[in-house]
Amino acid sequence: MTDIFQLEGYSVFTGDLQAHFPGWYRQRLYSSLLVVADTHTRRHCLPHFLASTGLPADVPVAEIPAGESFKHIGTCQHLWQQMLDARLDRKALVVNLGGGVIGDMGGFCAATWKRGVDFVQVPTTLLSMTDAAIGGKLGIDFQGIKNTVGVFRNPAAVFIDPAFLKTLPERELRSGFAEVIKHALIGDPALWSRIRHAKSATPEIDLDLLRASIAVKVRVVQEDPLEHGIRALLNYGHTIGHAVESYFLETDDPLTHGEAIAIGMICESQVANDGMLNEVIEVIQRHYGHRHIPEAAFPALWALMQQDKKNAGGKLRMALPDATPFAMKTLEPGAADIEKCLLFYNELT
Amino acid sequence: MTDIFQLEGYSVFTGDLQAHFPGWYRQRLYSSLLVVADTHTRRHCLPHFLASTGLPADVPVAEIPAGESFKHIGTCQHLWQQMLDARLDRKALVVNLGGGVIGDMGGFCAATWKRGVDFVQVPTTLLSMTDAAIGGKLGIDFQGIKNTVGVFRNPAAVFIDPAFLKTLPERELRSGFAEVIKHALIGDPALWSRIRHAKSATPEIDLDLLRASIAVKVRVVQEDPLEHGIRALLNYGHTIGHAVESYFLETDDPLTHGEAIAIGMICESQVANDGMLNEVIEVIQRHYGHRHIPEAAFPALWALMQQDKKNAGGKLRMALPDATPFAMKTLEPGAADIEKCLLFYNELT
Repeated sequence: MTDIFQLEGYSVFTGDLQAHFPGWYRQRLYSSLLVVADTHTRRHCLPHFLASTGLPADVPVAEIPAGESFKHIGTCQHLWQQMLDARLDRKALVVNLGGGVIGDMGGFCAATWKRGVDFVQVPTTLLSMTDAAIGGKLGIDFQGIKNTVGVFRNPAAVFIDPAFLKTLPERELRSGFAEVIKHALIGDPALWSRIRHAKSATPEIDLDLLRASIAVKVRVVQEDPLEHGIRALLNYGHTIGHAVESYFLETDDPLTHGEAIAIGMICESQVANDGMLNEVIEVIQRHYGHRHIPEAAFPALWALMQQDKKNAGGKLRMALPDATPFAMKTLEPGAADIEKCLLFYNELT
Repeated sequence: MTDIFQLEGYSVFTGDLQAHFPGWYRQRLYSSLLVVADTHTRRHCLPHFLASTGLPADVPVAEIPAGESFKHIGTCQHLWQQMLDARLDRKALVVNLGGGVIGDMGGFCAATWKRGVDFVQVPTTLLSMTDAAIGGKLGIDFQGIKNTVGVFRNPAAVFIDPAFLKTLPERELRSGFAEVIKHALIGDPALWSRIRHAKSATPEIDLDLLRASIAVKVRVVQEDPLEHGIRALLNYGHTIGHAVESYFLETDDPLTHGEAIAIGMICESQVANDGMLNEVIEVIQRHYGHRHIPEAAFPALWALMQQDKKNAGGKLRMALPDATPFAMKTLEPGAADIEKCLLFYNELT
């Protein structure tokens, strides 16, 4: 499989950062550069980034606190302030070094700084490598609702170096694996078969698996960059999963994004009466176990789903994979359907 | 001259709102609509808007305080909250009813709501009719620096109805007239001649003058929508004018945007040693009189100019009209050139 994926206007480079970044960067003649990192990636990922890119150790770094709970407009103000202090002009480059929060928020701040400066995504988590870093969706949460404020804008390039995965705790790796599962179900039966027949509960990530997953995402984004159609398929598991994630975020024991999306995939496949349902349940329970969803939370979950960006005309819209690769079906479940699938999920233990 | 200007992907309708809006709106099948207005336009412009469009009197209105000092991220949060409360989905329409602040900020909030919903500009000031409403530049001020955070996104349509001008105080009308002067100097010698030979210090605005001015803006934006080249010409007067405006905004006696840009045009034409300088001075002093700029403010003005979005590589860049219509020259003045032109301006009284 190829190591460079071509999207409209930018490339996704996979493999050693050192093999791809320096040559790309030299050609572009940026006026200056600002790295956006969080507390974790500054410590654990910046050294590998600097060693691989040959950039000087004193490259300016805008640091933000780690975690989804800081993915809000207040943190953007902090980032814009750093851009102002660094005197970033329109010919500058922003490098987002981190997971989905850094990519989405650093990208949003770059895309809105002086009406848009170039940025590259250097994802450091499995979740962002296989999903968030590709496709130009940028944004922040607003009033606890995920990605409600944002824009579409393509990065100047994406650099996916699996070396960063060594810095990840296993729970984070597992979280990202939910998107790999999703991509397999959407468009790659061979990848799904590999996942299904793996023995371990811990995902085994190698460059082949990563590239197969990225290839699915790239193909969908190429066909429908602005989500007028087939791109909605990437939301499989997310209509319910986002609501579950938002709900548990307010509790003492939040779920990772992938854990929530995994629950969402089971629930949505149940709503769709999907022939794959049993396989989906088996793979997901093996990797993620089970988390009970309190029945008292169902109305709140329903309310959260009303805010889903795919909805139109007051109806909940849910997109799922259909029988053949890259085929999509759309459902408009009512409150009773949602309650039923959540109860179904709860009874799986 | 035509009453409908065509830009890439949208139309600018000039003349009676009633003649253009209802037919356009019926065709588009939006899921819902939210009007963004400020305290003034809600009172003085909404009645004419509702009467002309036939929309119901209880159409949802998001109201913000009037004035440039509210063009910041805090007001955006208020607007996004209104969008959330109104359950605006991706198929909704935002109508920005007001001057440049409403258009820029309401547009920015719409362009970033769920990664972008449609919006139309219904400018109510001369300034926004002839300039801000056309061309897709959206944004807010950050740390007092104008339009530092924003995006490019085209409106779904622009409706320019001179009936709204009747609601304007004369000082506001005069403010907008500075952009008409700018457009005449950039690209329409006949318009410039009309302005030069008018007797009155009060601008006489009719539909012909409005359309001539709009035609210049439309042509520049058509040629260079993302400001990679000739569009910088629209910044004539603004490199120095924006700094002057920001400086006086912090005083007890702020200038209007147009008053500041008028000063900027004189100063920049002096820097450029422009053959038109004397004509420019005559027309501008006739309409705007003179405002002394304290010498103590010069370093602050120079510092403000350093933040100009056109700058690159640490150099101040200034774009001005050249001898023939729609020709541009670019200068990189140093601190001494700026000081000299400000002193020149001060000595004009």
